[in-house]
Amino acid sequence: MSSFDHTTYLSPFTWRYGTEEMRSVWSVEHQRRIWRRIWIALARAQQTVGLVSEEQVADLVEHKDRVDLERAAEIEKSIRHDVMSEVKAYAEQCTVGGGVIHLGATSMDVQDNADAVRLGEALDIVIRKVEALLSRLCEQIEAEADVTTMGFTHLQPAEPTTIGYRLAQYGQDFMEDLLALRDLRGRLIGKGFKGATGTSASYHQLLEGLPIDTIEMERLVMEELGIKPAQVATQTVPRKQEFQLVSTLASLGQTVYKFAFDLRLLQSPVIGEWAEPFGKSQVGSSAMPFKRNPIDAENIDSLARLLAALPRVAWDNAAHSLLERTLDDSANRRTMMPESFLITDELLRKAHKLIDGLRINRNASAQLMDTYGPFAASERLLMEAAKRGGDRQQLHEVLREHALTAWASMQAGQGNPLIDGLAADETMLSLMSEGEIRASMKSDDYVGDAPQRARGLVKQIRSLIGGE
Amino acid sequence: MSSFDHTTYLSPFTWRYGTEEMRSVWSVEHQRRIWRRIWIALARAQQTVGLVSEEQVADLVEHKDRVDLERAAEIEKSIRHDVMSEVKAYAEQCTVGGGVIHLGATSMDVQDNADAVRLGEALDIVIRKVEALLSRLCEQIEAEADVTTMGFTHLQPAEPTTIGYRLAQYGQDFMEDLLALRDLRGRLIGKGFKGATGTSASYHQLLEGLPIDTIEMERLVMEELGIKPAQVATQTVPRKQEFQLVSTLASLGQTVYKFAFDLRLLQSPVIGEWAEPFGKSQVGSSAMPFKRNPIDAENIDSLARLLAALPRVAWDNAAHSLLERTLDDSANRRTMMPESFLITDELLRKAHKLIDGLRINRNASAQLMDTYGPFAASERLLMEAAKRGGDRQQLHEVLREHALTAWASMQAGQGNPLIDGLAADETMLSLMSEGEIRASMKSDDYVGDAPQRARGLVKQIRSLIGGE
Amino acid sequence: MSSFDHTTYLSPFTWRYGTEEMRSVWSVEHQRRIWRRIWIALARAQQTVGLVSEEQVADLVEHKDRVDLERAAEIEKSIRHDVMSEVKAYAEQCTVGGGVIHLGATSMDVQDNADAVRLGEALDIVIRKVEALLSRLCEQIEAEADVTTMGFTHLQPAEPTTIGYRLAQYGQDFMEDLLALRDLRGRLIGKGFKGATGTSASYHQLLEGLPIDTIEMERLVMEELGIKPAQVATQTVPRKQEFQLVSTLASLGQTVYKFAFDLRLLQSPVIGEWAEPFGKSQVGSSAMPFKRNPIDAENIDSLARLLAALPRVAWDNAAHSLLERTLDDSANRRTMMPESFLITDELLRKAHKLIDGLRINRNASAQLMDTYGPFAASERLLMEAAKRGGDRQQLHEVLREHALTAWASMQAGQGNPLIDGLAADETMLSLMSEGEIRASMKSDDYVGDAPQRARGLVKQIRSLIGGE
Amino acid sequence: MSSFDHTTYLSPFTWRYGTEEMRSVWSVEHQRRIWRRIWIALARAQQTVGLVSEEQVADLVEHKDRVDLERAAEIEKSIRHDVMSEVKAYAEQCTVGGGVIHLGATSMDVQDNADAVRLGEALDIVIRKVEALLSRLCEQIEAEADVTTMGFTHLQPAEPTTIGYRLAQYGQDFMEDLLALRDLRGRLIGKGFKGATGTSASYHQLLEGLPIDTIEMERLVMEELGIKPAQVATQTVPRKQEFQLVSTLASLGQTVYKFAFDLRLLQSPVIGEWAEPFGKSQVGSSAMPFKRNPIDAENIDSLARLLAALPRVAWDNAAHSLLERTLDDSANRRTMMPESFLITDELLRKAHKLIDGLRINRNASAQLMDTYGPFAASERLLMEAAKRGGDRQQLHEVLREHALTAWASMQAGQGNPLIDGLAADETMLSLMSEGEIRASMKSDDYVGDAPQRARGLVKQIRSLIGGE
Repeated sequence: MSSFDHTTYLSPFTWRYGTEEMRSVWSVEHQRRIWRRIWIALARAQQTVGLVSEEQVADLVEHKDRVDLERAAEIEKSIRHDVMSEVKAYAEQCTVGGGVIHLGATSMDVQDNADAVRLGEALDIVIRKVEALLSRLCEQIEAEADVTTMGFTHLQPAEPTTIGYRLAQYGQDFMEDLLALRDLRGRLIGKGFKGATGTSASYHQLLEGLPIDTIEMERLVMEELGIKPAQVATQTVPRKQEFQLVSTLASLGQTVYKFAFDLRLLQSPVIGEWAEPFGKSQVGSSAMPFKRNPIDAENIDSLARLLAALPRVAWDNAAHSLLERTLDDSANRRTMMPESFLITDELLRKAHKLIDGLRINRNASAQLMDTYGPFAASERLLMEAAKRGGDRQQLHEVLREHALTAWASMQAGQGNPLIDGLAADETMLSLMSEGEIRASMKSDDYVGDAPQRARGLVKQIRSLIGGE
Repeated sequence: MSSFDHTTYLSPFTWRYGTEEMRSVWSVEHQRRIWRRIWIALARAQQTVGLVSEEQVADLVEHKDRVDLERAAEIEKSIRHDVMSEVKAYAEQCTVGGGVIHLGATSMDVQDNADAVRLGEALDIVIRKVEALLSRLCEQIEAEADVTTMGFTHLQPAEPTTIGYRLAQYGQDFMEDLLALRDLRGRLIGKGFKGATGTSASYHQLLEGLPIDTIEMERLVMEELGIKPAQVATQTVPRKQEFQLVSTLASLGQTVYKFAFDLRLLQSPVIGEWAEPFGKSQVGSSAMPFKRNPIDAENIDSLARLLAALPRVAWDNAAHSLLERTLDDSANRRTMMPESFLITDELLRKAHKLIDGLRINRNASAQLMDTYGPFAASERLLMEAAKRGGDRQQLHEVLREHALTAWASMQAGQGNPLIDGLAADETMLSLMSEGEIRASMKSDDYVGDAPQRARGLVKQIRSLIGGE
Repeated sequence: MSSFDHTTYLSPFTWRYGTEEMRSVWSVEHQRRIWRRIWIALARAQQTVGLVSEEQVADLVEHKDRVDLERAAEIEKSIRHDVMSEVKAYAEQCTVGGGVIHLGATSMDVQDNADAVRLGEALDIVIRKVEALLSRLCEQIEAEADVTTMGFTHLQPAEPTTIGYRLAQYGQDFMEDLLALRDLRGRLIGKGFKGATGTSASYHQLLEGLPIDTIEMERLVMEELGIKPAQVATQTVPRKQEFQLVSTLASLGQTVYKFAFDLRLLQSPVIGEWAEPFGKSQVGSSAMPFKRNPIDAENIDSLARLLAALPRVAWDNAAHSLLERTLDDSANRRTMMPESFLITDELLRKAHKLIDGLRINRNASAQLMDTYGPFAASERLLMEAAKRGGDRQQLHEVLREHALTAWASMQAGQGNPLIDGLAADETMLSLMSEGEIRASMKSDDYVGDAPQRARGLVKQIRSLIGGE
Repeated sequence: MSSFDHTTYLSPFTWRYGTEEMRSVWSVEHQRRIWRRIWIALARAQQTVGLVSEEQVADLVEHKDRVDLERAAEIEKSIRHDVMSEVKAYAEQCTVGGGVIHLGATSMDVQDNADAVRLGEALDIVIRKVEALLSRLCEQIEAEADVTTMGFTHLQPAEPTTIGYRLAQYGQDFMEDLLALRDLRGRLIGKGFKGATGTSASYHQLLEGLPIDTIEMERLVMEELGIKPAQVATQTVPRKQEFQLVSTLASLGQTVYKFAFDLRLLQSPVIGEWAEPFGKSQVGSSAMPFKRNPIDAENIDSLARLLAALPRVAWDNAAHSLLERTLDDSANRRTMMPESFLITDELLRKAHKLIDGLRINRNASAQLMDTYGPFAASERLLMEAAKRGGDRQQLHEVLREHALTAWASMQAGQGNPLIDGLAADETMLSLMSEGEIRASMKSDDYVGDAPQRARGLVKQIRSLIGGE
């Protein structure tokens, strides 16, 4: 069998990105195994009406795992048809049942259903990984549900939130993706056994006068494959399904993208709240201990962006499959479908690693709160002081002056003197005690129902994926 | 109020494409009405705990329809904030309740929920139109379920199918789209009332010590709006929802695109099977009676292609809403969201018209069957003649020669002599009668279970949308 | 003439984004004026061979600006053809020359060339604005060429650069865009006058026996329009040109996008180096003086992202114009082409404003250098100390310990003690004086040839656009 | 060295699509060879100022081709850095010069320039192949310049054109692509040698006091590599260049896409004018001799569609390379850049094959002219008969009736009786002789200047690419 190394072009999805598990699903060898499963399932259904004998089926079953790509390739050289080469290679092995392989079928009855089987397998991997990721994410949300940090809008410090609540946003998006993936998995359809133009004419002729009809035969075979057949089809199952699938993978990619982008921002030492996991002994570069490139997060954003370009290709395939089908989907599907899943696979692998080992620097959050929290809190003070009889106009001016002074000091790198300034301000002290001023200036607890909602989300997710 | 004419740039979606109904949903005036509905709903919820009086609510309700864009624009000029301008314009009208408008809210609590309301309205229009289209399509499928025509793969005549079965393919795709749209409609969420960073902190403070909490208040308001609130949110509801929505509209666009493209091919006089509806007196150009440009179908393909480009924009908005939100979604959403729906609206309008009035030329189908059907049927004859003792090799050669002769004749523009040739062939006549030969050469009924499956689909669709 | 207001859908490009100048180019009225220019040019060319009289041309010229959209719309209602309606409306005005309007022409000879004229006008506006923006940017580059700031890679402080050098990156990208735009402007082609299938057959017949042939007639008309004709064409000029154009606008959008995104990062108070211009009295919100949302930059990124989606639509139009043309480009071009330019127009307007009034806070840069510069510089110290006989291993350990201590201090919000620490370190002092240590720890001048290269770029740009 | 076979995922671009020549350019081994070329070029430049000795350079040169991926992979396992692993593996081989490899450089000085070299090589292949294709296409245009066929607009027969003129449209588009590719090739830039943030600070320090400065050193190295350096750069060369490149490849893909789509339409036996080349003995399927799937053309359209999705990824990379660079371009560039070229490579391979062996069935063209030409010509007859005194109204009615009768006959599969009918019509015969009527009904020569323009284009192309 042909093999390839780094003296030629190797896709990074062959050797660098994705897991072996997902790569196997999209290997030619695996595809051939599924073809053989399909031929066996077809023979079994045909056995029920006597078109095929028990011995023939048994022979096919016996040789099902002996895929011989080299022999098939040899045959393909002369007949130039991949499905028929595999039929012949399989038939050579099955001296008893060889003759009944592919009875009444056309190539697309095998290929297109095999693709549906592979889509199911690939989706199962993705779904399992999203669930695992969510399970770990729920733990992180709970652990950080009450930890206040500064919320940013427009990349500007705005009002406080909690770390767990921020994490919960990703959780909600992942949950949405999971629901959509499960829905598609449940509705996954294959072409069924419908022949050249989707009318089942060849099977119709084959089954003439026999006790089962085309629809019943199709039902039997598809049941064994574990895939529902389309109600109607042309030479192929509608390609719309692949647009929906790739779009949903891209949606999952979007969730991961946003998480990774936020992480990249928060890992910048100018904020320094979050960081990618790194080994205990690892301390960034020794001379620049803050220096820690978010390489996994950058990698995620890079690949997610590629994934986002692929739904359009699937759309085109669906839109342009003219009349009873044209073949202008085939070549790009050989790469677009596997790589949609391989990108997703790599994104989930990396995202799991990041969420699992996410380093949260609560000191940095505290420092952000120290720096920007008082400004956010000053309106609270204003309201309190006004309640006690202060003049709103005058109070506002007092606050404004202190705020400007404080910000100037901070820009000079000298911390935030706002609370101290107000706590010593005479106008303020005429209305409240220093302690009361200081108490009003706290915004650590100004997080509303964020912890409660974050925990509510965890509960929702757990009811979907199981867990405590 | 400012108005615009053709001396400046007017989008075709303002005057040329889309229906007035859909345009209204996306008008600024309508948006303002929804804002007012939201303020009223908020006031009502706050009334339950005494923050707002019954009279105040009544005042707001009384003035809810007096949107005055000119006054609001005037105010906006000085304060440069659209939501607050509307608050002030509304408050000027409501002498009793004006002061409680927007109590505790931030702009995005109004804008983002209003967008959810509009999405719901727009989705309702789309869903209703898809159902109407499907209803008519079902009739067409039934009417044509048994009419044989030639199926094309690779744009080459392949094996027969039926016109109704071909139509059923679109039916199945539209049904898938309908299911996806209904699903999204059912899961549609709004931001709810969660303030600047999504923590509901301001409402929390407002409701301190009162008998309802933030979550209950949100429930009350959203229930009145008929929209479910997100479990968690930042300053906005997750933009993922819009990616899913626009992708689903694009999927619907794909169904329409394929239908229109097939129609354009079939309307070419070289096939001539289908045509866009046209008036009775209309006969193409008088000198070129076959000449009939598929302008609606071309228009559909043009707009569907534009729609297909938009999910990517929604993906980017969702992916790049950094931390507790950035505003880089805002500007493009002003056009991308309305136009996604307006394109869809126009596609459905035109598709309905085409499906409703689709002109099907059964003569053309019959002629295709005459021309290409015999070739497809010749294998049937081979099998029959072989059964009767003919030599397979010899028979094959006989068929091949007649086929080549027939094709040469046809290329010279002289009809298909294949059946006549075979019916007069001595080798054939030595095995079968002329009548038997002619009977075997029929492929009109070689359509398997196509009629049955087409009718089965109609049943499925009707169980979804109602109807006979 | 119909006019529209906010009770229906109005595109933001009608009233909110883009300039009136660019909107006019894409108005229907302007289009009609160009059609009339084309008919006049055609008549003039035909006059040279006596097909049209001088008086007829004069009559056409006299009425060229009396576009009457209302009358044309009235006519269009009955004949349903926009070009012919305008012909008739124009002819009604021209009692002498009316009969010769459109002689020998097909609609696309008028429409497609008119589009080329509009593309030329729109490109001229874009080019002029890029030049103006570059001119101002050059001044900013020069002004900041020597100002050191911290360079960020992976959003991590890395090594110093200069503000002017950073600005020069945008300058180089804009320069590339300008070159590409000018190149396209220079190569812009129109369909010319080639009739229904591009063969000029109708003109050929018209000119039979006359002293000029089709190619010469085309040359005369196109020369007057200032547009080069395509060498060959079908019913339209190849749509490839529009793919190239929209791609090049998208490339310009990319430059602006990156600038705006960088600005959004740098405007975050956690860095605080750059800010969008704002009025003198404006001080952010009074209580949160650092709070200043980068709304123009966010708006730019939002619109640029939409622009990036449009080349694909133009690609499709070019790819799918089947055989001698299909009309599936028409509907989307009505919005895609104008809006490509209107987005660009708005991007340039905003980018110019931002570059012109860019607020650069050198204190923030200095503070970044204070904070992160010493770490970057510590390798310099290592090399210097090693030169003086220090033990590399031991020195490395000393540096590492000071760096870790310094970073810990900074994370606690206490400034960077690295230089002081090293300047008091005994191992260090055994090799160098405190002054020498402090001198080695400077990285303000560690900017290589950045100022020189930045100025070199300014020179290059100015040689392209003129200027000092 | 690791190798991979069909038990795992292999990209079709590794084994199925693209040529070995293009794959080699994008192999890891080739990349490593270029890295070594760069280190040698750098050493040579540094030798000019004595930083490196002649012997050291000679040693590096001697081992330049001994890339040992296995050894490098081994080293990479421990140090996790691909460039530094190659430095070490190379250094192990070079006992004399090993120590000077990579002197003063950062990884991106090597990687990014190596990418520029590869882009240049890949572009050279593409340009060469476009030229070869154009050369053959010119021959085909000339051969078919005068052969009339029916032109189709809206997929409807319209007016005649010539086969060569139709081919010339692709020629013009390919020529445009060639010009754009050459232009990009000429302007191709590399990062040059500018260090971590693009300031050349490390080289600046290295060259302090030496006779050449950073700019001169860069010039020397880049000259040896044959690539121009960017005037300014960050850690990388601006990624805009890759957007321009991939867009231009996509533009080429568009040309091929349109050609292949037209071919698919024309190869449908309902038209039957063109066909993909096939072996002499090949006659489609024996029973269905017309059946010939346009598999290469379908394959082209499939891959071109994938290529069309890639510019957007390159746009994103350019737009999001934040500040002095982020790494979110890296992962997708590993696949997007090679595959952009590998798709293009395959498209050109197949397009060349199709154009070279294009089977043109002039009989089919003649039959189209027989069928539809008379309708197109009937206006000529009308004008001629009117000239001779016929009543326009009456003539029009005569023509209309004959046209409707003729079309009805054709729809019944009975050829086009229009000419015969008119030639026997009494009204017509009262004005013209039968011979004159028949002569007026010819549209074979109604092709204007199509042949002349087609030949003019050939001349233009040949002046660009050489040839007769």
